[in-house]
Amino acid sequence: MLDSDILALAEEVIVRCTARSATLATAESCTGGLIGAALTSIAGSSAVVDRGFITYSNEAKSELLDVAADLIATKGAVSSEVAAAMCRGVLAKCPVDFAVSVTGIAGPGGATPDKPVGLVFVAAQRRGRDPVVTRNVFPGNRTAVRTASVATALNLLLQELN
Amino acid sequence: MLDSDILALAEEVIVRCTARSATLATAESCTGGLIGAALTSIAGSSAVVDRGFITYSNEAKSELLDVAADLIATKGAVSSEVAAAMCRGVLAKCPVDFAVSVTGIAGPGGATPDKPVGLVFVAAQRRGRDPVVTRNVFPGNRTAVRTASVATALNLLLQELN
Repeated sequence: MLDSDILALAEEVIVRCTARSATLATAESCTGGLIGAALTSIAGSSAVVDRGFITYSNEAKSELLDVAADLIATKGAVSSEVAAAMCRGVLAKCPVDFAVSVTGIAGPGGATPDKPVGLVFVAAQRRGRDPVVTRNVFPGNRTAVRTASVATALNLLLQELN
Repeated sequence: MLDSDILALAEEVIVRCTARSATLATAESCTGGLIGAALTSIAGSSAVVDRGFITYSNEAKSELLDVAADLIATKGAVSSEVAAAMCRGVLAKCPVDFAVSVTGIAGPGGATPDKPVGLVFVAAQRRGRDPVVTRNVFPGNRTAVRTASVATALNLLLQELN
């Protein structure tokens, strides 16, 4: 049901987390659950994946992850700051070792003069460290943007797991 | 990235919800975000999908959706009662019109003498009504069980949207 290259990345995350008894939780906006779906497609993932948040609306980001409404208003929901705040919210609220988050514009709607379709911020954070955030502009349609976002999120998580 | 028949069901949910200005939220255990991923793959879904919960661990079910730990202990996380409680929790905590939930055993591990791999409870609830729950035993491997679970959840949601 999911691309094989995504599943290979997901499996690597689960293998590395399992080896160090690490747990994680996800916070997804434009990917809408795809990261969680990819990770939990791996047998044995229940020892690693504790939970996930699909914070599609701005209210959900604030209510579930304590992302400040002021921050969303000033920086925009699709911003480096909000991606980082989503990770911080996960680690503040959940008993996990790692957080990963995504917020972006999958298209076809939602673009602004400053923020094109395909703009996606991805963040990962290890407990006790600051979140690492990357800014990406992915080409292609909605599916391509979302798939690239999941791959980037899993790669960033792998980097933090090194 | 997702099967075309699943995407067709997801599109029908988004179309029907949009037509009546209805919103929804998801609560997923064994599907791990796939229902959210399917729904948000549809352009324009942001007017319908408010948020979702991936409650993979028992603690997540209790902490995020107020599913009573006693209920999980007595009935099991994979039970009709917990599927219903997940929907009730969504509607109690989120400003949405519809909830859909899934809890099951995707395999290959996790089976018990009473509960085989493939056993999945799916629930949907319209605000103001009781949740409707179905008990399913799906054949096949982990991917097949999860895919069938998503399809069943979307179909049950469509039934409640009639």
